[in-house]
Amino acid sequence: MFDHQIYIKRREELKKKFKSGLLLFLGNDEAPINYPANTYNFRQDSSFLYYFGLPIPNLAGIIDVDENKEYLFGYEYTLEDIVWMGPQPKLAELAERVGVQNSDSISNLKKFLKTKVSKGVKIHFLPLYRGEHNLKLASLLDDDPFKINRKASKKLIEAVVEQRSVKAPEEIAEIEYALEIAYQMHTTAMRMAKPGLTENDIYAALNGIALSLGNGVSFHPIISINGQTLHNHFHGNQLQEGKLLVCDAGAESYEFYSSDITRTIPVGGKFSQRQKDIYEIVLTAQKNAINMIKPGVKHVDVHLTAAKIIAAGLIQLGIMKGNPGEAVKAGAHALFFPHGLGHMMGLDVHDMEGLGEQYVGYDDKTKRSEQFGLAYLRLAKELKSGFVFTCEPGIYFIPELIDQWKAKKKLKNFINYDKVEEYRNFGGIRIEDNILVTENGYKVLGRLIPKEVSDVEAAYNAV
Amino acid sequence: MFDHQIYIKRREELKKKFKSGLLLFLGNDEAPINYPANTYNFRQDSSFLYYFGLPIPNLAGIIDVDENKEYLFGYEYTLEDIVWMGPQPKLAELAERVGVQNSDSISNLKKFLKTKVSKGVKIHFLPLYRGEHNLKLASLLDDDPFKINRKASKKLIEAVVEQRSVKAPEEIAEIEYALEIAYQMHTTAMRMAKPGLTENDIYAALNGIALSLGNGVSFHPIISINGQTLHNHFHGNQLQEGKLLVCDAGAESYEFYSSDITRTIPVGGKFSQRQKDIYEIVLTAQKNAINMIKPGVKHVDVHLTAAKIIAAGLIQLGIMKGNPGEAVKAGAHALFFPHGLGHMMGLDVHDMEGLGEQYVGYDDKTKRSEQFGLAYLRLAKELKSGFVFTCEPGIYFIPELIDQWKAKKKLKNFINYDKVEEYRNFGGIRIEDNILVTENGYKVLGRLIPKEVSDVEAAYNAV
Ligand SMILES: [Mn+2]
Ligand SMILES: [Mn+2]
Repeated sequence: MFDHQIYIKRREELKKKFKSGLLLFLGNDEAPINYPANTYNFRQDSSFLYYFGLPIPNLAGIIDVDENKEYLFGYEYTLEDIVWMGPQPKLAELAERVGVQNSDSISNLKKFLKTKVSKGVKIHFLPLYRGEHNLKLASLLDDDPFKINRKASKKLIEAVVEQRSVKAPEEIAEIEYALEIAYQMHTTAMRMAKPGLTENDIYAALNGIALSLGNGVSFHPIISINGQTLHNHFHGNQLQEGKLLVCDAGAESYEFYSSDITRTIPVGGKFSQRQKDIYEIVLTAQKNAINMIKPGVKHVDVHLTAAKIIAAGLIQLGIMKGNPGEAVKAGAHALFFPHGLGHMMGLDVHDMEGLGEQYVGYDDKTKRSEQFGLAYLRLAKELKSGFVFTCEPGIYFIPELIDQWKAKKKLKNFINYDKVEEYRNFGGIRIEDNILVTENGYKVLGRLIPKEVSDVEAAYNAV
Repeated sequence: MFDHQIYIKRREELKKKFKSGLLLFLGNDEAPINYPANTYNFRQDSSFLYYFGLPIPNLAGIIDVDENKEYLFGYEYTLEDIVWMGPQPKLAELAERVGVQNSDSISNLKKFLKTKVSKGVKIHFLPLYRGEHNLKLASLLDDDPFKINRKASKKLIEAVVEQRSVKAPEEIAEIEYALEIAYQMHTTAMRMAKPGLTENDIYAALNGIALSLGNGVSFHPIISINGQTLHNHFHGNQLQEGKLLVCDAGAESYEFYSSDITRTIPVGGKFSQRQKDIYEIVLTAQKNAINMIKPGVKHVDVHLTAAKIIAAGLIQLGIMKGNPGEAVKAGAHALFFPHGLGHMMGLDVHDMEGLGEQYVGYDDKTKRSEQFGLAYLRLAKELKSGFVFTCEPGIYFIPELIDQWKAKKKLKNFINYDKVEEYRNFGGIRIEDNILVTENGYKVLGRLIPKEVSDVEAAYNAV
């Protein structure tokens, strides 16, 4: 946990945005795997962590704006518990650790909220994403568990998104530490990309590293020789010489901040000329996109710049044709680069995604496109100093998508379908780094993880 | 997955126990960590796995007893999904893999059930343990999500428990494989128990091994130099010479069967005489308990035998006093051995615990004791050939419990509280193996993981 002053400051800042009402942050509970007592690794809710810091189940944090008071509700351990669990801090002690003055048993929370509601106080809460929470909050507020989520407070969402979007120095330091773990993970993957090993050998090794240096992986690592399948969580294939291995993996720091890095590695340690050609396009797109980053720039424009470089590169190889700008305008690049360039990152690897992408990545001035590809862009709005997000262009040859487009001769003025067929089994390439927007520009966070062709090849041979 | 004949046979056997009704097995869904799209490792519900095998989210399996028909309801992937996820099997294909004739979209399940209910068909379902499922089933049956769990079918629970309790050869083979992974984990822990390393170094390594050879750990490993704290999931301590490291860790096989092994290792590789004295008592208790195992024996008697050996050993050391039989009858041993000797094991590490321990470990002839210690025994009833369960006696010096008892001078005729104080900081020792009840006796499953004092010490020095 950070110093309690940090949590006090964060809550003060949030409070200022409200004239009245009660802000309720429900902490997460244990999540059962296959029966109630066998639970997944506990993960606290990220907004709860942000304002109330404690990585402990069954808590609720409250900011009472009207009374200018803060509360921690939680479970008070009994002597019986302590016999089994060892010495446990008192609830008041936990509250103190995050600078909260008042604490009470969670069993009194319902009565507490009821009294507030009866006085006409508005209860602001964030969207729920675990079924358990729908039941819990509905029970607390005597509401309908199927409908309660619709009552999540837009005002609270907007206030939290505004605040969490701008990372403070202690948060950047955590992300950099998560990136140091990612450095160890990805250089290990590069050394392990040997024919005969399996994707799972690498998957297991990276999980082990993430657990040994932090809280574990920040999301299911994608470790796949079928990188063209974007949502590919299968990792049972054997590595074969000539294939490209996409490794999209990040870690969580001890304070629950994420990293999210992708590298694409030639199995056997040597890119072929064909692989190099595509790789260099992706790398150039990424570098140029990163170079554009500064406060005031709209991220949708960064995305479109990357798309244009990809289109230009593919035109040069004869896979696309026509003018890059027109091709991108028409959305033709999206056959090969169908996803968004990046997403916010922080306490969540897709930061605040659960609060709603329309709040996190869009605003009144930036509406979501409906064009295939561009529609998937998670972050489009104007960048501000303190934002941290990923830059992750890619080029993929997705057989199912190619067939779909080809059958309709979609955008045939921009796509050379005959040439595309030559790349049908190419796979995919993605390169991803994590970027901080600074006062005047950007900083690529973390230690440089090999990404130049020669560096990736050298990393394969490192001991 | 096993051959589809196995699932057909299991369902046939279950069906025979019902004259009418519809047996509904709701598969698990993805479980969100910190926002909807970031999910924990998917784990299918164990009873769903047992009868319908498929380790895929968002399925429901149905056995319609009246019509003698079986159904798989699930999600049919769209072309859009396939573009992102790669080629996916059709629902009918999935159903075929487990020998089910009929399949339909999960979106039709509600109507299907409604029609059945309107015809007076009873819907049997098992207890739910994820909030998401309360909402899902309540929605399917137009019922109250807060109360639906009370309607779980006792008849179905009893039938499933009876069937899942007796392990078939293909299940034993899976458990043995999970034990081979555990062998690798525990011998690694023995080699790593060096002063200066941390509990977490071992924790991370064991997780990595479990992922590299199977589906990962079957429960949070306990890797602790404070083994006296029974529910200890903290693993941030540095290993210190002279401490005992309790490692309670198991793995899940590719077919989702568990192992659950405990070893206690002297940090630095050498037991002190004091440690050896206690260790040998626990080991003798375990060996003698295991030796009693055969069909027809009540497991509560096995537990009490282990308790008596523990009491006798502690009497010899002057920690307890009086007659071992009387001490155990009075429950005095429970100050040092406060938990049960073992629990069923299979698709769940505490097998079927979610269905209710009263069904799994007790029966009409065996009621749960109310005595401290014995009350925690998970398996008390008569053993049958095919049962697989753990045998895990332990001796612990729990300061909080000692203080509690000492203050009340509890059972002071059996406990030498002055002598106990000498062991206050001793820690704890547990030794756990996994046992199969055979036709005439028992088999300790898996490869022998070092447990004699000299073997554990030798394993520390193995390369
Ligand atoms: Mn990413
Ligand atoms: Mn156990």
